[in-house]
Amino acid sequence: MLNDATESLARLLPQGVVREIAPAYLEEPRGRYKGRAGLVAAPRTVEEVAAIIRACAEARVPIVPRGGGTGLVGGQVMPDGAMPLLLSLERMNRVRAIYPEEGVILAEAGATLQQVREAASGVGRQFPLALASQGSAQIGGVLATNAGGVNVLRYGNARTLCLGVEAVLPQGQVMHDLKRLRKDNTGYDIRDLLIGAEGTLGIITAASLVLAPVPAESGVAMLVVESPEAALTLLSLAQARMAGGVTAFELIAGQGLRFLDAAFPDLRQPFADRPDWLVLIEVGLPAGLSADDALEGLFTDAAEAGLVSDGVIAQSGQQAADLWTIRETIPDANRHIGAIASHDISLPLSEIARFIHDATAMLADRADLRINCFGHLGDGNLHFNLFPAAGKARNAYDGIRTGLSRAVHEMVVARGGSFSAEHGVGRLKAAELGEWGDPARLAAMRAIKDALDPAGIMNPGVILA
Amino acid sequence: MLNDATESLARLLPQGVVREIAPAYLEEPRGRYKGRAGLVAAPRTVEEVAAIIRACAEARVPIVPRGGGTGLVGGQVMPDGAMPLLLSLERMNRVRAIYPEEGVILAEAGATLQQVREAASGVGRQFPLALASQGSAQIGGVLATNAGGVNVLRYGNARTLCLGVEAVLPQGQVMHDLKRLRKDNTGYDIRDLLIGAEGTLGIITAASLVLAPVPAESGVAMLVVESPEAALTLLSLAQARMAGGVTAFELIAGQGLRFLDAAFPDLRQPFADRPDWLVLIEVGLPAGLSADDALEGLFTDAAEAGLVSDGVIAQSGQQAADLWTIRETIPDANRHIGAIASHDISLPLSEIARFIHDATAMLADRADLRINCFGHLGDGNLHFNLFPAAGKARNAYDGIRTGLSRAVHEMVVARGGSFSAEHGVGRLKAAELGEWGDPARLAAMRAIKDALDPAGIMNPGVILA
Repeated sequence: MLNDATESLARLLPQGVVREIAPAYLEEPRGRYKGRAGLVAAPRTVEEVAAIIRACAEARVPIVPRGGGTGLVGGQVMPDGAMPLLLSLERMNRVRAIYPEEGVILAEAGATLQQVREAASGVGRQFPLALASQGSAQIGGVLATNAGGVNVLRYGNARTLCLGVEAVLPQGQVMHDLKRLRKDNTGYDIRDLLIGAEGTLGIITAASLVLAPVPAESGVAMLVVESPEAALTLLSLAQARMAGGVTAFELIAGQGLRFLDAAFPDLRQPFADRPDWLVLIEVGLPAGLSADDALEGLFTDAAEAGLVSDGVIAQSGQQAADLWTIRETIPDANRHIGAIASHDISLPLSEIARFIHDATAMLADRADLRINCFGHLGDGNLHFNLFPAAGKARNAYDGIRTGLSRAVHEMVVARGGSFSAEHGVGRLKAAELGEWGDPARLAAMRAIKDALDPAGIMNPGVILA
Repeated sequence: MLNDATESLARLLPQGVVREIAPAYLEEPRGRYKGRAGLVAAPRTVEEVAAIIRACAEARVPIVPRGGGTGLVGGQVMPDGAMPLLLSLERMNRVRAIYPEEGVILAEAGATLQQVREAASGVGRQFPLALASQGSAQIGGVLATNAGGVNVLRYGNARTLCLGVEAVLPQGQVMHDLKRLRKDNTGYDIRDLLIGAEGTLGIITAASLVLAPVPAESGVAMLVVESPEAALTLLSLAQARMAGGVTAFELIAGQGLRFLDAAFPDLRQPFADRPDWLVLIEVGLPAGLSADDALEGLFTDAAEAGLVSDGVIAQSGQQAADLWTIRETIPDANRHIGAIASHDISLPLSEIARFIHDATAMLADRADLRINCFGHLGDGNLHFNLFPAAGKARNAYDGIRTGLSRAVHEMVVARGGSFSAEHGVGRLKAAELGEWGDPARLAAMRAIKDALDPAGIMNPGVILA
C-alpha cells in the first residue's frame, strides 16, 4: 500500500528541497483534474533527485513529477489515491554544455524548451522542436511525453531529437547515459523506454539533444486547396520537389478561419473569402536556391495538377511570421469558442481524407455541432475538435460528449490510427489504452512497469490505470 | 535449466516447419564462433512462430533467431550451452503491402534489405538504409541489430526508419503493432525496445518501414582533405549549405587507398598521389538546384577556407557509382590484407580528430602495425582496424591482439564513445558491455530481460552474458 506524504518523509529528504505547496502545482491547463500533494520537493541536483526517490520508495509514498505543467492529459496531477510528493524539476534548469560543431546541447530537465531553443540560436544552430507552450514547457516533460509540434515532419519528435539521458530509476539508481553519439548499439534502448513513459518508469534529469543546422534558405506559403485529399497529394508533390526539405505542412479548416474572425476580428487573413481548406507549408532549402523560386515552382506545378487554386508566398520574414500567426492563433480561437471535445489523433496518411469525410458525416447524424479539424497533416496528426452549433451552449452537449468522443476514437482505431498522437496517455486516456491497446503490448508494458518500479510509486494511475 | 532441442520438442512444433540442419545455419561471417543446433525451424506465419516459441518455452529449449546470418558479433550462433532450436525467418519473406503515397512498406522479417529497397524503387520511393550485405541481410536482423550504414546521417538508423512491428514475445504472445503512423504516443516504446535487442526479448516477424522521397537532384564528390579535423569542419560547412541534405559523408584514409592498390590494382582511383585523407560526400537536393552547382559551391568555399586541396565531382551516374565503388571496396581490401583487429566505434564528433591522433600514437608505441581508419564520419562512426606491418604475418600479433583492442576500446569509452556503434553487442562484446555499461542501465536491462523472458530462452548469452 502506498502512504500519504508526511512529516516523517520530510525528515528523510535532502535539506532545503521542500517548497511551499503553491496552488499552481496542483493545476493542469484543461482544468479537468485537481491535484493534491502532501509535499512539494524541488531538488537542485541528480543526487538530490535520487535521495528523494529513495526516501519515497522507503516510505512508499507516490511521486508525481512536474515540469512546466503544460501537459494536456493530466499526467502532472494526482487527484486521488495516497497523498503524493510532487517532484518539481524547476531548479534543475541549466544548459550544462553546448557543442555547436557537434550539433549537441546538454540541458537539464527543468530548462524550458524556449531556453534551449534560444541557446541553440545563440550558436547559430536550431533546436527544431517547436510547441505553442514552449515558454513554459520544460525539457523533462517534453521528453516524458515525447512531444511533437510543427516540425516533426522534417526533424522528428522529442524521441528522435534525444541522444542520451541522465535519469533516476524508481529504486533510486542514477543512470548516467548522457551520450553525444549518433550511433550506439550497446544493448536495450532504455533511453527510448523512459521517453514517452510520462514519469512512470523514472525521472529524466538531463538530456543530450540534437541541434540541427539552420537551413540556408527558408520560406513559408499559404495555399488554398479544395480538400484534405488534394492537400495530401500536394504534400507528396512538395516532398518529391524539396528532397525532404518540407519542415512543416499544416492543415487549416475554413471553420478555424471563421473562429478566428469571431475571436480575433483584427487578425488579418490573406484570403477575403474564407476558403474551406488551407495548407501552411514551410520549407528549408540549401544555399543557391531561393525559397521564393522553390515555392513558386511548387505552386505552378500544383496549380497545373489542379491541387491549389490560390496562394500567397511570404515575401519577408514578417510576412512569414504573420502566416504562422494565423495557424498558431487557432487554438486560442478554439478556447474562445469553447470546445465540446478535443481529439489528438493520428491516421495512416492514405486514410486521412476518408476519415475526415466519414467522421464528419457520422457526427452530423448524431448532433448539431461545428468541427474544427486542423493540425500537422504531414505527420498524419489532426486535432479534430468539436464545438457547439452557432448560438448553442456547451453544456447542451454534456449528455452526449463522452459518446461523441468515443465514436471518434473508435473510428480512428478501426482505421489503424492512434487516439493519442502527440499529447500522451496520462490519466485522461489510460482507460482507452487499456481497452484498445494490443494485449501482448500491454502485458509487456505491465511486466516492465512491475520490474522497474515494484513498489508502484512512480506517477501511479498514469498510462497503466 | 535449459534443455537440448530433442525429438520430443519436434513433436510439439507445427507441421512442416522443421528443416535439415545445413552447415550454413551454424556459421557467422567472421568465423569466430561455430554454432550448434538440435533443430532448425522455418515458420511460414506469425502463428507458427508463436507456436514454436511456446513449444520451446514449455520444453525450456533455447532459441537462436536467424536472419541473413550477416551479423558481425556472433548474435546468430550459439556455440555452447544447451543445444538450441534455430529459428530461421527465411520463409517469412514477403512484402505484405506498399503505400507509396504514405511512404510506408510492410515487410516480413525474412525479406532481404535488397528486396525492400527494390520494392521501394519500383514505386518511385527509396528505403534509405544501405549496407554492403544488403543482398543477404534480412529485415528482421536489420531491426534486431538496429543496423546503420552509409545514409544514417540523413535518414537515421533502422530504429528511426521503423514505424511499427509485429513480434512474438518470449512467452509466445503475438504483439500486433504494425502501425503506419508517424506519431503515436500510447504508452511505452516496446517497438524500440525490441529493435536492437538482438532477439533476446522476442522475435520481430514483420515491420512497417519508412520510405523516403527520392531527392530531385543528387550528386557525389570525392574531396582531398588534410586531416580528419578538416573533414569535420567541411562537414559543418556542408550541412550549413545543404540544409541537412548531406546523405553520406564518409572518411577514407590513405592506408585504405594503398590497400586497394595492393588488393585491386585494376581499380582506378581519382588521385594519382594517394592522399592521406579523402572524404566521399553525397548530397540529395531539391528541384531547381543542380547537384553540380551545389557541390562546386561547396568546393569553392571549402578551398577558400583551406579545408580541401583537390577534388572530383561526379559528372554522371556512372562516375558517382565509381566513386562509391572505391569506398565500398575497402572492406574487401581489408579482408585481402587480413586484419589483426577491427573496431566498430563511435565518438562525439568533436572528439574524433583527437582520438584518431592519440590512438594512432598509443598503438605506435605498442606495436609495429598499420591502421586503416575509415567509415561514417558524419555519424561519428569509424571502423578503426589494425593490420600487420608490411611483410609481417597476422599470427605474429596473436599474443597482443586482445590487449590492443582493449586499449582502443578503453580510449573510446574514456572519451564518451561507444565500443559498438552499429554492429551490436552479440556474444562478442557482451563481456565489455558488462564491464563498461552504466550499472543502473545494466540493472534495468536485466530486470526487463527477466520480466519478459523469465525462462531465459531467447538467444541466451547475447547482450547480457
